[in-house]
Amino acid sequence: MKIILIGASGTIGRRICETLSERHDVIRGGRKGDDVSVDITSAESIEHMYKSIADIDAVICAAGGAKFGPFRELSEEDFYVGVRSKMMGQVNLVRIGQNYINDGGSFTLTTGILAEEPVFGSTALALVNGGLNSFAAAAAMELARGLRVNVVSPTVVEDSTDDFEDTFAGYDVVPMDRVVNAYIRSVEGQITGRIVRVY
Amino acid sequence: MKIILIGASGTIGRRICETLSERHDVIRGGRKGDDVSVDITSAESIEHMYKSIADIDAVICAAGGAKFGPFRELSEEDFYVGVRSKMMGQVNLVRIGQNYINDGGSFTLTTGILAEEPVFGSTALALVNGGLNSFAAAAAMELARGLRVNVVSPTVVEDSTDDFEDTFAGYDVVPMDRVVNAYIRSVEGQITGRIVRVY
Repeated sequence: MKIILIGASGTIGRRICETLSERHDVIRGGRKGDDVSVDITSAESIEHMYKSIADIDAVICAAGGAKFGPFRELSEEDFYVGVRSKMMGQVNLVRIGQNYINDGGSFTLTTGILAEEPVFGSTALALVNGGLNSFAAAAAMELARGLRVNVVSPTVVEDSTDDFEDTFAGYDVVPMDRVVNAYIRSVEGQITGRIVRVY
Repeated sequence: MKIILIGASGTIGRRICETLSERHDVIRGGRKGDDVSVDITSAESIEHMYKSIADIDAVICAAGGAKFGPFRELSEEDFYVGVRSKMMGQVNLVRIGQNYINDGGSFTLTTGILAEEPVFGSTALALVNGGLNSFAAAAAMELARGLRVNVVSPTVVEDSTDDFEDTFAGYDVVPMDRVVNAYIRSVEGQITGRIVRVY
């Protein structure tokens, strides 16, 4: 398969790339753009990416930010950081991509456990993750040409625990292999409209 | 209690108003503004509303729109209609209101079954509803002074079935009394961070 992986240089993205590259043609996308430059906060940039790469079988997004911080201190604009990036960025990857990728192709988005098990400081991320979980189920019903869309929702991953220890006290940490497997299940399997929880 | 009810002239809002007015002081809010004018798409308008009414014990929002339509035909801007209105409008009612309402006060927001059981045409509404469901759980953890926040998530309500029959084929229709009860449970009870499903 020919796969676009956005966020290929991130903690999770790097590991997805290593594993999938063994048997697929992985095009690494991101703001710095190892293979292709794309800014997911811009619909124009996403459209440009799809126009520049023919014959795509799968799109994986492991990118997109949102503002973490106490609810009392978050401004409306702080919420919109996540809305424009992680939320509408991933919506737009599917919305625009449905016109470009191959029949039977798939989209795999990334959300996270904060949609269901919030921590202090996570209101904006919960909003974004919960929205995307529901969006994927709705969009899956409407995609034509056998296209599929799923969401991978990981908890804290072993490689990132140092940053998060206090915030996620008591959360089980999952091995990276399990997270990578969730993306493989979405890309190589036949599921659609699913939240693949890695808790 | 002194309760602000936003969307008091809507299908559900009218019935909440009738019931709660029997034992509470209900201030009817909305764009046309029976008692107080507020446009929930504007943080400034929300702040102005809170500044103009002292001593609020509860805020109920049964207002906020989002674009319904085939996913293939929705533009980015169509998604933002719901993001700015039903989604960020309700986030802002809590975000700003936490600085104004009385100790022990409550916020009751409205989402809907499309967060979990989508229909064709509901991608934007699913996104908005799912986001708010997760937001409420996260925000409830952080509210100070005993403040509470819940979401009421109704399915199709008996009074609105005529408009929706084809779209929601096979969905059970719930009596309005059950929907009104969910708002009462949130306002008069002690729950917080809950999705009160009325399916």
